[in-house]
Amino acid sequence: MILIKRSNERPHTEEELEWWIEQYTAGKIPDYQMSAWLMAVCWRGMDARETAALTRCMVQSGDQLVWDKGDKTPLLLADKHSTGGVGDKVSLILAPLAACLGAHVPMMAGRGLGHTGGTIDKLESIPGYQTCLSIAAFQDVVQAVGAAIVSPSETLCPADRKLYALRDVTATVPCVPLQTASIMSKKIAEHPHSLVLDVKYGKAAFQESAQQAEALARAMIATGQANGVQTCSFLTRMDHPIGSSVGNWLEVYECIHVMKTGKGRSDLVTLAVVQAAQLVKPLYPDMLWEDLVHKTCETLQSGQVYGKFREMVVAQGGEASHIDQCLPNKATYMHDILAPVDGFLSDINALIAGQVCVRLGAGRTKADGMVDPAAGIWFHAQVGDSVDAGSKIATIYTNISRTILEQATEMLEKAVQYSDHAMDAPPIISHRVEGDGKMEAFTLPMTLKNLM
Amino acid sequence: MILIKRSNERPHTEEELEWWIEQYTAGKIPDYQMSAWLMAVCWRGMDARETAALTRCMVQSGDQLVWDKGDKTPLLLADKHSTGGVGDKVSLILAPLAACLGAHVPMMAGRGLGHTGGTIDKLESIPGYQTCLSIAAFQDVVQAVGAAIVSPSETLCPADRKLYALRDVTATVPCVPLQTASIMSKKIAEHPHSLVLDVKYGKAAFQESAQQAEALARAMIATGQANGVQTCSFLTRMDHPIGSSVGNWLEVYECIHVMKTGKGRSDLVTLAVVQAAQLVKPLYPDMLWEDLVHKTCETLQSGQVYGKFREMVVAQGGEASHIDQCLPNKATYMHDILAPVDGFLSDINALIAGQVCVRLGAGRTKADGMVDPAAGIWFHAQVGDSVDAGSKIATIYTNISRTILEQATEMLEKAVQYSDHAMDAPPIISHRVEGDGKMEAFTLPMTLKNLM
Repeated sequence: MILIKRSNERPHTEEELEWWIEQYTAGKIPDYQMSAWLMAVCWRGMDARETAALTRCMVQSGDQLVWDKGDKTPLLLADKHSTGGVGDKVSLILAPLAACLGAHVPMMAGRGLGHTGGTIDKLESIPGYQTCLSIAAFQDVVQAVGAAIVSPSETLCPADRKLYALRDVTATVPCVPLQTASIMSKKIAEHPHSLVLDVKYGKAAFQESAQQAEALARAMIATGQANGVQTCSFLTRMDHPIGSSVGNWLEVYECIHVMKTGKGRSDLVTLAVVQAAQLVKPLYPDMLWEDLVHKTCETLQSGQVYGKFREMVVAQGGEASHIDQCLPNKATYMHDILAPVDGFLSDINALIAGQVCVRLGAGRTKADGMVDPAAGIWFHAQVGDSVDAGSKIATIYTNISRTILEQATEMLEKAVQYSDHAMDAPPIISHRVEGDGKMEAFTLPMTLKNLM
Repeated sequence: MILIKRSNERPHTEEELEWWIEQYTAGKIPDYQMSAWLMAVCWRGMDARETAALTRCMVQSGDQLVWDKGDKTPLLLADKHSTGGVGDKVSLILAPLAACLGAHVPMMAGRGLGHTGGTIDKLESIPGYQTCLSIAAFQDVVQAVGAAIVSPSETLCPADRKLYALRDVTATVPCVPLQTASIMSKKIAEHPHSLVLDVKYGKAAFQESAQQAEALARAMIATGQANGVQTCSFLTRMDHPIGSSVGNWLEVYECIHVMKTGKGRSDLVTLAVVQAAQLVKPLYPDMLWEDLVHKTCETLQSGQVYGKFREMVVAQGGEASHIDQCLPNKATYMHDILAPVDGFLSDINALIAGQVCVRLGAGRTKADGMVDPAAGIWFHAQVGDSVDAGSKIATIYTNISRTILEQATEMLEKAVQYSDHAMDAPPIISHRVEGDGKMEAFTLPMTLKNLM
């Protein structure tokens, strides 16, 4: 029996895992046996071979994307996954940016849960934008536009869907092999050629330390490679909110601004440019990394990325006029937080900022909760900036009530720290782990350095 | 949440465990959460304080035995528990023997499962014997006779009943803190003054090594002491069947013979006498151990133990004439195994013997299976005995079919080994662990040495 084997520390064969996942998905293995197995996996772990096999079983539990082998075959199918952050709007820029550089990006993204936001929630703040496409319609948009961002179809990885719900109520979510299988099964079902992972660590990430992030990154890379997907990963810091905004329309608004002007907060631009360059690397085999980043930067600054984004929005049913006008965010209750002293902004606690946004109505506490597109926070200053007493640090938006606005203000004021001397935030990307497992400290390309 | 705490390696408070067990017993916590917790306990373990508290919660989940504080108060309420063996009929002799020496023995015993036999199944081979008494009737027999052996009431430790059923199907049975809480809760609910544990190890025991047996013994002792029960343990070998018989009536028949004559196989007599002496020790505080064992031996040889056993059987509704006559076992199909060579009996594999008995109909493979009182094996020779080619080694009994008889014969022939030189089985009792945790190699008292 599978359970006895797991409790006895013996590894599973692929056939055993197939049977186990198949039977569970079919409702023939009760939850109480699966939850015991999940807990055993949390304690005992799984080796790379088992994790890759488990992932494969989960992919096989449902529909998968099949790409034409003909004239219409995309040259490079590439996708990115982030483990979740606060203000992490990178995909909104990265997908059209990579498409402009020649890649096809079939991105299935998630909704926000807890303090982290979700790309799907953000896109739904654009009136008309459809995130639930059929697999065929999704593939059509990818082939026609070069990028599409949708929420995973119900028929994709049903085993993961069922397992995740059980893990959520049995304290078996934080477990590297189970996380790996859950994330990677949905990506592998897209059958991309290559995949870039953004594994976050820090105060507001699911991984606290760089070591934990590295372990998850390595497990995901091994599983990707074992399933025929070229996979690499960046380890990135998640201590401060990324960019200027946390919220749904606020983040789309910020991204549109970046795509239209080619300018934006350094952390956001760095993540988008570096990860897009990494994504399209197989298309430019003879180009030096520094040159490829430069080309990616130029593409972002050319304004054509907004055009690509607009094409994608329109193809998925969104109102072009809404993003073309791109009106500033408005909510019934708004409040500005002002700097109490002259000095430097030394910290914005992203975990608190994320939690405040949930309170404001921008996030959800239950999987089926609603989100308000207008709720959120706009940060007028970034960590490291010098500020004058009385200058605006952040604006808070909510449609719920004045009381919530006041509570949020009080919470957020505690999340922002000041210092009397200048101090830069550490670089947003700390390491890169290649597909072969080689890990190196990440050096910011000159192009991006010069930009800042 | 309890589950998160367990998966995070933080210890539980008693209040948390109380809530957890209470809610689960009341059906308010689903099996899938409990099974994940059980698996986490298997991997993470529990400290002595937690194990004692969990046990207490399980005791408190149901009815408990309350003993009068008056003239009728038994001086010494004592019980014994064995972790289960093949041919382990010791309780049948030990309970009336300890009662003859002045103890009151309220013994709640189990049924057989798998290759191990159960005291309750054995007693039910006596026509009329009732093993399901109300708690009040059970206490009346204990007070009137000095000993009663019943199966645990449904209302006793319902939490353990529910948990055990779940552990059985989630591979969480072999786990020291869970085993400890399961065994000890039912014993502590009897509220005895003292408790002797027989923790078996070897081929046919649940604990393979002496180290594993020691770990379980220490955990159970700590839990007993923490709950106000003087607890000690013997570590005993379970490689060969105990005594001459394996089966239900066969074992009762053997015990009646021992109680009537004071004579029997050395392993059986040693276990009964030593453990009974240990049980009644608090009644003879000034007596040396060697003298107490001598007194216990004399009591066994006096024939009065059979009288006490008969009293107990009659008080529980059993037919006195059946045990007085004590007719030899009979079954439709019987077969003698003969020694193939001159030499010495060097091994009888107890695990195989136990499994053969299940095949013959003496044991059960499911918790609600029926057992045949007449099925089983009688061993005419013991490990270490010299045998002549053609002499009877064992007789096999079954009512099922000739085919089963033949299969059983073939299996059992492989379980019996011969040697051309004399070799004694190692002593049946290897260690004693006292209530204070002191452990010593066990030395056979002179009285018993002389007896053999």
